[in-house]
Amino acid sequence: LNVKIFYLGTKTENLTPFVESSTVIEGEPFDNRIPHLEYEFYEHIAQHSIIEKIVEAEKEGYDAAVIGCFYDPALHVARELVDMPVIGVCEASFNIAAMISAGNFSVLIGRRKWLPKMVGNAKKYGFESRIASWRILNLTVPMMRDRKITSQAILRETNAAIVEDLAESVVIGCTGMIGGIPILDPVLCGIKVAEMRAVLWRKYNISHSKIGGYESPPLNEFKSIFEKIYSKTST
Amino acid sequence: LNVKIFYLGTKTENLTPFVESSTVIEGEPFDNRIPHLEYEFYEHIAQHSIIEKIVEAEKEGYDAAVIGCFYDPALHVARELVDMPVIGVCEASFNIAAMISAGNFSVLIGRRKWLPKMVGNAKKYGFESRIASWRILNLTVPMMRDRKITSQAILRETNAAIVEDLAESVVIGCTGMIGGIPILDPVLCGIKVAEMRAVLWRKYNISHSKIGGYESPPLNEFKSIFEKIYSKTST
Amino acid sequence: LNVKIFYLGTKTENLTPFVESSTVIEGEPFDNRIPHLEYEFYEHIAQHSIIEKIVEAEKEGYDAAVIGCFYDPALHVARELVDMPVIGVCEASFNIAAMISAGNFSVLIGRRKWLPKMVGNAKKYGFESRIASWRILNLTVPMMRDRKITSQAILRETNAAIVEDLAESVVIGCTGMIGGIPILDPVLCGIKVAEMRAVLWRKYNISHSKIGGYESPPLNEFKSIFEKIYSKTST
Amino acid sequence: LNVKIFYLGTKTENLTPFVESSTVIEGEPFDNRIPHLEYEFYEHIAQHSIIEKIVEAEKEGYDAAVIGCFYDPALHVARELVDMPVIGVCEASFNIAAMISAGNFSVLIGRRKWLPKMVGNAKKYGFESRIASWRILNLTVPMMRDRKITSQAILRETNAAIVEDLAESVVIGCTGMIGGIPILDPVLCGIKVAEMRAVLWRKYNISHSKIGGYESPPLNEFKSIFEKIYSKTST
Amino acid sequence: LNVKIFYLGTKTENLTPFVESSTVIEGEPFDNRIPHLEYEFYEHIAQHSIIEKIVEAEKEGYDAAVIGCFYDPALHVARELVDMPVIGVCEASFNIAAMISAGNFSVLIGRRKWLPKMVGNAKKYGFESRIASWRILNLTVPMMRDRKITSQAILRETNAAIVEDLAESVVIGCTGMIGGIPILDPVLCGIKVAEMRAVLWRKYNISHSKIGGYESPPLNEFKSIFEKIYSKTST
Amino acid sequence: LNVKIFYLGTKTENLTPFVESSTVIEGEPFDNRIPHLEYEFYEHIAQHSIIEKIVEAEKEGYDAAVIGCFYDPALHVARELVDMPVIGVCEASFNIAAMISAGNFSVLIGRRKWLPKMVGNAKKYGFESRIASWRILNLTVPMMRDRKITSQAILRETNAAIVEDLAESVVIGCTGMIGGIPILDPVLCGIKVAEMRAVLWRKYNISHSKIGGYESPPLNEFKSIFEKIYSKTST
Repeated sequence: LNVKIFYLGTKTENLTPFVESSTVIEGEPFDNRIPHLEYEFYEHIAQHSIIEKIVEAEKEGYDAAVIGCFYDPALHVARELVDMPVIGVCEASFNIAAMISAGNFSVLIGRRKWLPKMVGNAKKYGFESRIASWRILNLTVPMMRDRKITSQAILRETNAAIVEDLAESVVIGCTGMIGGIPILDPVLCGIKVAEMRAVLWRKYNISHSKIGGYESPPLNEFKSIFEKIYSKTST
Repeated sequence: LNVKIFYLGTKTENLTPFVESSTVIEGEPFDNRIPHLEYEFYEHIAQHSIIEKIVEAEKEGYDAAVIGCFYDPALHVARELVDMPVIGVCEASFNIAAMISAGNFSVLIGRRKWLPKMVGNAKKYGFESRIASWRILNLTVPMMRDRKITSQAILRETNAAIVEDLAESVVIGCTGMIGGIPILDPVLCGIKVAEMRAVLWRKYNISHSKIGGYESPPLNEFKSIFEKIYSKTST
Repeated sequence: LNVKIFYLGTKTENLTPFVESSTVIEGEPFDNRIPHLEYEFYEHIAQHSIIEKIVEAEKEGYDAAVIGCFYDPALHVARELVDMPVIGVCEASFNIAAMISAGNFSVLIGRRKWLPKMVGNAKKYGFESRIASWRILNLTVPMMRDRKITSQAILRETNAAIVEDLAESVVIGCTGMIGGIPILDPVLCGIKVAEMRAVLWRKYNISHSKIGGYESPPLNEFKSIFEKIYSKTST
Repeated sequence: LNVKIFYLGTKTENLTPFVESSTVIEGEPFDNRIPHLEYEFYEHIAQHSIIEKIVEAEKEGYDAAVIGCFYDPALHVARELVDMPVIGVCEASFNIAAMISAGNFSVLIGRRKWLPKMVGNAKKYGFESRIASWRILNLTVPMMRDRKITSQAILRETNAAIVEDLAESVVIGCTGMIGGIPILDPVLCGIKVAEMRAVLWRKYNISHSKIGGYESPPLNEFKSIFEKIYSKTST
Repeated sequence: LNVKIFYLGTKTENLTPFVESSTVIEGEPFDNRIPHLEYEFYEHIAQHSIIEKIVEAEKEGYDAAVIGCFYDPALHVARELVDMPVIGVCEASFNIAAMISAGNFSVLIGRRKWLPKMVGNAKKYGFESRIASWRILNLTVPMMRDRKITSQAILRETNAAIVEDLAESVVIGCTGMIGGIPILDPVLCGIKVAEMRAVLWRKYNISHSKIGGYESPPLNEFKSIFEKIYSKTST
Repeated sequence: LNVKIFYLGTKTENLTPFVESSTVIEGEPFDNRIPHLEYEFYEHIAQHSIIEKIVEAEKEGYDAAVIGCFYDPALHVARELVDMPVIGVCEASFNIAAMISAGNFSVLIGRRKWLPKMVGNAKKYGFESRIASWRILNLTVPMMRDRKITSQAILRETNAAIVEDLAESVVIGCTGMIGGIPILDPVLCGIKVAEMRAVLWRKYNISHSKIGGYESPPLNEFKSIFEKIYSKTST
């Protein structure tokens, strides 16, 4: 099946290496008014545009959407509003890391500020018992632009995760097996899961459940509120 | 200590019975554009105004804020932005229910739609092992305006929680002890905890930790973003 | 509401700074025959007098009782025998620490001897998933009388808890925010919760549940046994 | 090895069928001033005499002690004071039930009043994830003297545990396999474990750890307090 | 990427509807000497041939293997011996069910005999906190050949899972969304995950970790033992 | 009762010191074609002979069997096929370690390769919440034949477990109390539990449950498969 993926993220150029030749991928940034999503307030602002863009993407015929931030912002609210599969890169990475490890996996994150929210997500997803450790790189999002410092920190903490925390794989922004250790890039994981989910939806009619937590609001009510909020009444 | 509480909720009239004579309480609605907060999209919209109002409340000298919706919407983002104690009525109710029960407590909720989000919160707060059961009233927020039907549903499910699920107390919109069973009103719990937390803050300098998850964004960066988002540049 | 708190503890002088001006507090020691409660046998002896004193305190019209030892000795048996709220300082501290931390909190204790009992309590209360670490000061109760050594140990271990265990707050015998980290004194937490619980009881009729674990023995049976045990038949 | 077991319980006659021919067993009641141990206050009183009797039993050369009440009263404080193995019948039963079940086991108890304390113990022992259900017989200790009513209740609830809760074995006051279902008598379990533990102690020098929670108080301090409490100074 | 999947299962005809047009799939039965894998002894026998066949499949250039039995037999030992991704249909189904449910999912199984082993797997994979219920169809593998009886049982228990256990999706041998409820076929899930994993391996060099639990035996030692066991020395 | 124990292990000479004088013990090796059981593939081979030997042992009138490898290989399948108690040394050691520790216990293992499987077992048995730490000796099974190196590693890691991980007892191949710390030999634990279980079976008719996970295959079906697999049709 040829599928069309909608990708939201901070870096949206150069996504082609992540997709199959039968996949088309389009990328868009979150919201230009915020420098990053490190604070929950900034994340809240990003959510506002993520919601709008994913609702539009479904209308435009996309087969799946990927939210390219490790907080998985707006993941549940987006699923509430659309039938199209919506993938969070954190959730996707945890699923793959869990499947490739006999034991547990570690997660490297930039700052301890991010920890409680991500731990909350891990608990919701059910993976808390599979996480060997959370390791803090002590790098802000802007600092991570320095590739050398970032690589060194990743290497150092990956090593520590493997040796001290007995992790068998590590989730962070790299790809491939280094010395037998799989280091997982959430963007790759998210997109690979999105391709699979797109097929499950279009060919087998399986997407996220609409019984329970992802139940949509009544269409009429929703439509008028959505238009008011996103000021589309004039169109 | 005389304290001043800021209360956000759907019903904001008639809060006086919930406070001590030394407490002043002011109430405000969430956002008039949404009929209720049942869907996560509506909650997202409410969050937008909750954030703004709580930031303003701190500036106006309030001693604590209460978010009067059982989803505890915007609880963490609000705490990120202010030093003033911010109370979620769900979190407050769970703390009190846990303290008054030797065994476990049950939670009555309107619809199963609400369940996953609330279970996620219970896991984050740490109370999952104390919850005897979640019982669904099968009532939407609008249907709950019919007090008779609501009372009957609450009575029926409270009874079932006590007898079948061995709950020792129940969290829901009532107050008092009925037949020895404490039935807890989240609004009362939230306000009582807010009064205590206001004193802890003003008199003992204890509020939520700023190390970690509630770390604020850098003031300058935050200020300009906040003003842009809430269109206050002109003021 | 003006409330009257009964406080049981090793240090009972100088409790006034912990209470509101509308609160009267009376303190009493546990049992003079034991030097401290570090061993479970000593705790058992203390329990004997705690039970008696709390039953008496309720008769004398107190509005709440606080048991000022971090083992929360006799907490459940006291609640079984009275309707008046009974507060354990450990349970109260854990509730407050959980509410002020986005992530987890640490607990500093004197000796590893105390650990299993306290861990058992944390499991019962439901907070095990919120505890970042237990850190041992390696100080006995008598050694803690040396304030300088104790302060140094607290500072060292608080720091380690924050940096190594990623705790966001710490429970131990201090009060206030040091460098943004809330360090919680169980005595303050216990008394603040007691004031809140006293109001919930007297004004809203909410105390611990009498369905289940805190069910009282039949009054007649209890009365004669109580009198025999505490040799009050003559009075 | 010939071993000598000290048994504390409400029924102490007729223990011979539970022991090996190489075992001597002596039974003693808890405390004559209390009718049963159903309330924590009564249990507290029983603890007082259990502590004394187990300390004496060790001096008299017993090889192990069994506390014959499903609350496992005074188990930890007794272990703190002696080196001799001390067995709680609940803990012993849970260990055996866990070993004979591929899946989980159920526990039948008399009244819901007992539940929170026993659940607390199950959590401490680590068996919470192995318990299929707690089922309430709705029988007080005195009511259980009616053997017919008790048998019927046990049969009914055992059946329900097997069929509805998918239990593979059941812990309660019976012995043997009924229709392939092992129904475990805590007294038998406690005594069998005590015989094993007596051998482990006397022949292999293994008893409960004295590092940590079971550390004894300093001998001198303890001795004088023990004598004062149990009024033995004159002897 | 064109990929080649090796599928082991009881039904191996008619797998084409489950794969993409770019995928080749070959199926083989487990072991003809056993009628099914319901008993662990039969499973043990099947494991013997699964191990051999997967080792051969890797040599023959397959890109991934799927073990088509819900016990995930020989999953870990196969991963130990090969680099090629090996997928268990239970593990794959749980990952997908977790990703499409905001709340929890249920699992329908044939007989309670299977329960403990599957619960053990769920704990190992980390999904125990996401399982709403295990429901027993009371059908043996041979009985399941009667499609009508099986469909009725699945429908009845799916309904019960949704209504009584609040499941949001269900794992069992069907495919598609019935009334908004996704019912997942483990064979489909296994194959879809295998396609994704094949690409991750061949294109991004990511397969299961060889650090830790999936470490292979030393090649020389392994080779001679493997040949002895599978009597290949003569070839 | 005089009992007869069947012991399967790598070292089977010199088992007499582990048994009571009323016990007869016979030992047999696992399978001579494998050097050890460190890899799951080798374990799979060993399982094949363990199954056969335990089925035979029951026929020969043994009262219990002990599987002397810390993976507890074939434990569940053996229990499925026989009524005689079958003891895994890991499960037995965890039960005893749990009973002798007020807090938690540590487990020393040879290599991290073993960890995920053993953690999986600990979760199945229910003891995960009682394990203070798993410590890796970094010794293969062959390396452990050097007694001096092994002793040093055990001492070093035992010490670290006690001091750093706050373990109160340790499971590993030693026996006795060293400086008050019980260090448990799984072989001793397994045999002691086997003696107890043999008595429970022969005298009280209690063995593992045949309801659920340990249900046996239908005798006729099983018999012919067993004979075919173990090539006994000719006998």
